[in-house]
Amino acid sequence: MSQKTKVLVTRQLIDEAQKLLDSHTELEIVQWNSEKPASRTWLLENAKGASGFLVMLNDKVDEELLDAAGPQLKTIASFSVGTDHVDREALKKRNIRLGYTPTALTDAVADLTVMLTLMAQRRAGESVAKVKEGEWPQMPWAPLLMTGPQIGGSTVGFLGFGRIAQATLKRFLAFGIKRAIYLTSKPGQRAKEDHFGLLTGSSIPIEPAKSWEELARESDVVVLGCALTPSTKHLVNAEFFAKMKKTAVIVNIARGPVVDTDALVEALKNERIFGAGLDVIENEPNITADHPLLKEQRCVLVPHIGSATIETREQMAEESVKNLLAGLEGGAMVNEVEL
Amino acid sequence: MSQKTKVLVTRQLIDEAQKLLDSHTELEIVQWNSEKPASRTWLLENAKGASGFLVMLNDKVDEELLDAAGPQLKTIASFSVGTDHVDREALKKRNIRLGYTPTALTDAVADLTVMLTLMAQRRAGESVAKVKEGEWPQMPWAPLLMTGPQIGGSTVGFLGFGRIAQATLKRFLAFGIKRAIYLTSKPGQRAKEDHFGLLTGSSIPIEPAKSWEELARESDVVVLGCALTPSTKHLVNAEFFAKMKKTAVIVNIARGPVVDTDALVEALKNERIFGAGLDVIENEPNITADHPLLKEQRCVLVPHIGSATIETREQMAEESVKNLLAGLEGGAMVNEVEL
Repeated sequence: MSQKTKVLVTRQLIDEAQKLLDSHTELEIVQWNSEKPASRTWLLENAKGASGFLVMLNDKVDEELLDAAGPQLKTIASFSVGTDHVDREALKKRNIRLGYTPTALTDAVADLTVMLTLMAQRRAGESVAKVKEGEWPQMPWAPLLMTGPQIGGSTVGFLGFGRIAQATLKRFLAFGIKRAIYLTSKPGQRAKEDHFGLLTGSSIPIEPAKSWEELARESDVVVLGCALTPSTKHLVNAEFFAKMKKTAVIVNIARGPVVDTDALVEALKNERIFGAGLDVIENEPNITADHPLLKEQRCVLVPHIGSATIETREQMAEESVKNLLAGLEGGAMVNEVEL
Repeated sequence: MSQKTKVLVTRQLIDEAQKLLDSHTELEIVQWNSEKPASRTWLLENAKGASGFLVMLNDKVDEELLDAAGPQLKTIASFSVGTDHVDREALKKRNIRLGYTPTALTDAVADLTVMLTLMAQRRAGESVAKVKEGEWPQMPWAPLLMTGPQIGGSTVGFLGFGRIAQATLKRFLAFGIKRAIYLTSKPGQRAKEDHFGLLTGSSIPIEPAKSWEELARESDVVVLGCALTPSTKHLVNAEFFAKMKKTAVIVNIARGPVVDTDALVEALKNERIFGAGLDVIENEPNITADHPLLKEQRCVLVPHIGSATIETREQMAEESVKNLLAGLEGGAMVNEVEL
């Protein structure tokens, strides 16, 4: 039997992160070696005797897997922001630490949020499709041809006002927006965390909204960046769309179920709102070509690529390895979930 | 015969601009009344006796049309930034003033430039297409799935560094770029105009490049915002792409012929560069569905919608009417071309 500390790693890592992991010769590294996700069978078969797991967000960490590993398991390092795939209660009971990578992706997601906002306003999905279908030669220039609302001078409403939302606001300020409002779990109260020094001394008003109705009514751009909880599930529904401006766009970079998809389809079909930009959607990734939302020209949907930059994924991988090592050695993780 | 001053207006205008025009009851307004462009025949038939024209960028203003109008013609107000459709020499000879609308669209175009940059880096065209084709369920999550380069930390190179380029830079600063370089008709010399106060006291280096080779070699994002002249035609060609980073993207918001399209297709096909975002292309709008560039997944092409926001088009229309009135009355135009 090996004297080395066994770790289970469910994916090939990126350059620097893999090198860092491999440099730890005191470890017995059992690693899934494919671009495809590790199978459940492989996980259960190889967990036995491991002191640490480095897992991806599609690997379910539950009682069964923890049992398969055995009582020596000390730590889980998840290459992800969310930790819904991990049974926290089960970890707590067994005194197993949980590391994750919530901060690395802030910039990548904020960048994508701006992209989706501009795509929704400037009719990018529709434009690209028309050109691809060869319609450009038949589009005579006219003063209002393919026009959309301009971000400059607009009010941006944030549903959820954490680090990613504030990083997005920082970018929007350079586009000349005139006001920002936000709704958190404490309506009407000023945000406690000011991640980028925007809330004091900004050149435009940045204010808490008192209700979702106020946010829906006053925003030209609604950015959804809240956590998914029972109170945010379908928070954006038919009633919400009914209160929005007809020229406003909605951007979801949070979780799919924050938006009632059927209501969004109706709002777009009836031109209740101008457009939508979505990185997430209910029931993802099981979105087939016949999904009703894909018929709506004013909706842009990308396959949950918020954090998909090379730089961010490298940083997430490195932080995951550091969390794994810290968990094994009893040191401080880059980011640890309080269980 | 009417005692009123006749003006020829080649398109229905937008709300406020139309109201402003209509309020001038001293004018006899002969106006084309359709979303489609006015025909040449209509123009020639109705020009006779006009003191002013308000034209769109698809109306050719040449000797023939000026002759058709007659010697009382005092002014042309063009609803456009470019004035290639107007024979300047012919105007100069006849002492006819020319107004245009170059400044109104700065923000709209800068916004679109950021959108195209992010779309090229974050593989938006490819992402949207995959989702539409129903491929999302078959895209297993992997650390490098659909990743692209991140704008933060990058060097942005501007080919041409006028108002729109500088407005774009202003926006990019909020995304954490680390350096900007620019090439103008005077390589190596500092830009004279600092439209938004960025060049003095910026937190990052903003420097003139000495050559196009330097710009191509050092940039992670190349933004084309120069005028089309004999020396910028096909400035971005196979040689240029050969010098670019493999991870870099190119964004064209200038004029199509600045880029050699065949060379761009090759560069994308051979992964010489990471991606492209284009608002303009050679031979637009005659781009049919079989155009070779449309087969390149990493290329996003929109149908010249840089200035296509409702706000900007309204402002351009109003400024056109003001230029027309100023030209008739001998007052100062919002923007006048020096002939």
